[in-house]
Amino acid sequence: MDESGVSTKDAVMIFDTTLRDGEQSPGAALNVNEKLEIARQLARLGVDVIEAGFPAASPDDLRSVRRVAQVVGNPDSGKGDRVPIICALARAKRADIDLAWEAVKSALHPRIHTFIATSDIHMKYKLRMSRTETLARTREMVTYTKQYCDDVEFSPEDASRSDPEFLYEVLAAVIEAGATTINIPDTVGYTTPQEFGDLIRGIVANTPAIEKVILSVHCHNDLGMATANTLAGLKAGARQAEVTINGIGERAGNTALEEVVMALYTRRALYGLHTRIDTTQIARTSRMVSNFTGLLVQPNKAIVGANAFAHEAGIHQDGMLKHHATYEIMRPEAVGLAQSQLVLGKHSGRHAFRVRLAEMGYELDEDRLEAAFRRFKELADKKKWVTDADLEALIADLFYQPKEVYQLVDLLVVAGRPGMPTATVKLRGPDGEELIQAAVGTGPVDATYRAIDAIVPVANTLLEYNVHAITEGIDAQGVVSVRLSSEGEGSRVVGGYGADTDIIVASAKAYLSALNRLLTQRTDGELQIAKREE
Amino acid sequence: MDESGVSTKDAVMIFDTTLRDGEQSPGAALNVNEKLEIARQLARLGVDVIEAGFPAASPDDLRSVRRVAQVVGNPDSGKGDRVPIICALARAKRADIDLAWEAVKSALHPRIHTFIATSDIHMKYKLRMSRTETLARTREMVTYTKQYCDDVEFSPEDASRSDPEFLYEVLAAVIEAGATTINIPDTVGYTTPQEFGDLIRGIVANTPAIEKVILSVHCHNDLGMATANTLAGLKAGARQAEVTINGIGERAGNTALEEVVMALYTRRALYGLHTRIDTTQIARTSRMVSNFTGLLVQPNKAIVGANAFAHEAGIHQDGMLKHHATYEIMRPEAVGLAQSQLVLGKHSGRHAFRVRLAEMGYELDEDRLEAAFRRFKELADKKKWVTDADLEALIADLFYQPKEVYQLVDLLVVAGRPGMPTATVKLRGPDGEELIQAAVGTGPVDATYRAIDAIVPVANTLLEYNVHAITEGIDAQGVVSVRLSSEGEGSRVVGGYGADTDIIVASAKAYLSALNRLLTQRTDGELQIAKREE
Repeated sequence: MDESGVSTKDAVMIFDTTLRDGEQSPGAALNVNEKLEIARQLARLGVDVIEAGFPAASPDDLRSVRRVAQVVGNPDSGKGDRVPIICALARAKRADIDLAWEAVKSALHPRIHTFIATSDIHMKYKLRMSRTETLARTREMVTYTKQYCDDVEFSPEDASRSDPEFLYEVLAAVIEAGATTINIPDTVGYTTPQEFGDLIRGIVANTPAIEKVILSVHCHNDLGMATANTLAGLKAGARQAEVTINGIGERAGNTALEEVVMALYTRRALYGLHTRIDTTQIARTSRMVSNFTGLLVQPNKAIVGANAFAHEAGIHQDGMLKHHATYEIMRPEAVGLAQSQLVLGKHSGRHAFRVRLAEMGYELDEDRLEAAFRRFKELADKKKWVTDADLEALIADLFYQPKEVYQLVDLLVVAGRPGMPTATVKLRGPDGEELIQAAVGTGPVDATYRAIDAIVPVANTLLEYNVHAITEGIDAQGVVSVRLSSEGEGSRVVGGYGADTDIIVASAKAYLSALNRLLTQRTDGELQIAKREE
Repeated sequence: MDESGVSTKDAVMIFDTTLRDGEQSPGAALNVNEKLEIARQLARLGVDVIEAGFPAASPDDLRSVRRVAQVVGNPDSGKGDRVPIICALARAKRADIDLAWEAVKSALHPRIHTFIATSDIHMKYKLRMSRTETLARTREMVTYTKQYCDDVEFSPEDASRSDPEFLYEVLAAVIEAGATTINIPDTVGYTTPQEFGDLIRGIVANTPAIEKVILSVHCHNDLGMATANTLAGLKAGARQAEVTINGIGERAGNTALEEVVMALYTRRALYGLHTRIDTTQIARTSRMVSNFTGLLVQPNKAIVGANAFAHEAGIHQDGMLKHHATYEIMRPEAVGLAQSQLVLGKHSGRHAFRVRLAEMGYELDEDRLEAAFRRFKELADKKKWVTDADLEALIADLFYQPKEVYQLVDLLVVAGRPGMPTATVKLRGPDGEELIQAAVGTGPVDATYRAIDAIVPVANTLLEYNVHAITEGIDAQGVVSVRLSSEGEGSRVVGGYGADTDIIVASAKAYLSALNRLLTQRTDGELQIAKREE
């Protein structure tokens, strides 16, 4: 491995695919700014590889992978931080590989990850290719990739349902062609730990020259066993784990980074393996990904759920007081919880604000800092204590939203019971003119959305609407996330979010954010194509 | 096994502990009506054993276990359904066992589940007992339990961290004393599938007369491996799995019923095991438990998450269209999704309404049916289609709320941006008088809660506030769930929920529901004591 990789035999490389496989969660679509911010945070978290996207999927994907490669894939002047490998996905096609290289070439450590399906069912129904054709194409495309980039990863899609003998043959060809990492995906989330460990052991035992490459595992959680399968793969000899924050991803999602990392950490005596993750950044990364994607984390989610370290039962609390190891196998501090929560109040000045943001990893220029400080003062007037979570929501709401085609100017809502919930909305449109509409609805949010619909010409269906308070207390900010699908041809699902202490205002922002996303993408004349999962 | 148990060697008994270990999730506290309704649904789902509570924890627990035993634990006249075993938990203490028997004795198939810790760390710090003392107490208490009840389950708490030799000794004594089920808990969620399978294999190989009992497994999800551990235990010879709906429970929760059941179902060729669960009831049970406990299910939750069967990526959809098995290992219909969604509209009459509720398993007397029908008509006036999920929310909101000490009469809210969010609330108090207060807040919810606080004298802190739309469309009903902790002595966490098309009204209802719960429990003069987890 080069200097950014892991060199000892006990080290596991963490390959984060939140921005690629994770972003394929329905409605999770992230814009360039959000992707860049998540990538920065992943670097702080200490992941070894960031899979930043699938450039052939859309010009937007290409742009965001390129930005991540330029910014997060290069040394930050004045800091001694490790620079992660930036990876782009490509089907085993020249055009895809060309675009992938175009996207990652500016990174200090670029990687191209190419894949082709090797299971009979996928070759027959999806690729319509024979085994011989698949083998030839694979060898040719890895060789083609290698001319661009030394660091080449290859995945046999649907590996866990492929004929092992054919798999060994494909992998041997790929290693000969120069692949440096071989990734084994359980594409449909079908295997058990025993089976998946056996699959990896079989590959190690039967693939010529396998010791030359890093073996990687990529599991899905359809039967709830992604973490156990990943760990079984590592135990069997794999040294890279492909994971996402909060386990997001299509269907039941991918393996959760936090679970694999904390299992290796908590059970290091058993596994004898370690990662280079700064576990104290886990909680914050989890919150950021949840806020930006609108994908909530359930309270009983392992490691990052709100209850993961909460103890209710009397006896249990009693045991905890006597000796915390009676019920607790790790400390909340290890994942970055229970750190100082109260940070700033209404008397905090510009300097304290700037220092806190810098400590949190935000680097804002003077204009943005000033804008953020104004919002902070507004918030601090309403809310006694402003926490890190409040600041994260504020920054996200200010700077990581899509281009504002329509912008919220004023909103007036009257509602209650009995009543006729009514909303009046004033928006500023693309040409700067202000438009006002009133509407009545089944509730204040419905009325607000109907008033916005009367101004913004995008037919859509609201699929999902969620609000959660991001901090404790009745004066907390609410974060609203919505998912909606556009109607008519090329129907797409997009998400949006907004934060405010007034949840109706936050609801209006979230809806506008999603509509703006639809409008921006439509204006660019770009349709999303050919996203895939492995 | 008796006629309600499972008799073949390939059958796995499903022991549901949603109402006991699941309910110990912070803030998930359920009232008697909610527990009864969940127990009814668990019976429809086809679980073999319902652990209904821990009667020694509080008089409320005792009452609700007794109700479940009476109603759900006995044959329903006119129906041929199987009657589940009703189980109550008891520490290895006479007083606990007496109460447990008191609670379950009216069931057709009663079970008492007693436990004691067997790990050195728990014996030393929690029990302050030696091995000899623990062994003697265990034998004595199982014998004591046996005088009440033939069906006795025993759990060595923290089994996965106990000395195996001591464990075998305890289990042999317990079997000799007459226990019929031996349950092995991984109390702290610490083990891996390999280790847990080895533990079960060790018990099978080394415990005299183990073949006389059903071996059971009970796992926690702290490292994300509860499902894989449970399956490893079944593979090693266990024939009962202790699980909860949605995997709720303290910290990261228990093993999720839906994951274990669907893994056995999807991979039956591998495991060769089956359960008697009606899998088409899974989605509905999941929604009910989520609504009643206020514990949201994340979109990427395996089996029951909103995205579990959703496919975003282009290639992937393409593959699905060509052959669904390319990416899908089970069909949404198998878990009761994708069934008829549009059920009733504003022109539906009383008869159609009654029939639909009956099909859904609700049996309401005339008065309640009339009240529900009125609410349905109000809803149908606002909302084009009323779905099963709408009806479930409506029924829960009407009938499973705590006693209304304070009741919402009127609510008026004015909010927006810029603005001074103001709420005026009229409540009917315990003595029937109507009380009005207005308040200004940081948003309409905050203003509403401040106005309620000015009327209802319960100091509290709002810990969590969530809203989700339960169906698609902008006219959807919102379900608000809150968790709050009372202040002062004997501080407790309670949850509340409310449904309405107006989310401010739903927010007011949820807050009142939680406050009423605090007030009711306080009036009863009961403090929760001694809940525990295993």
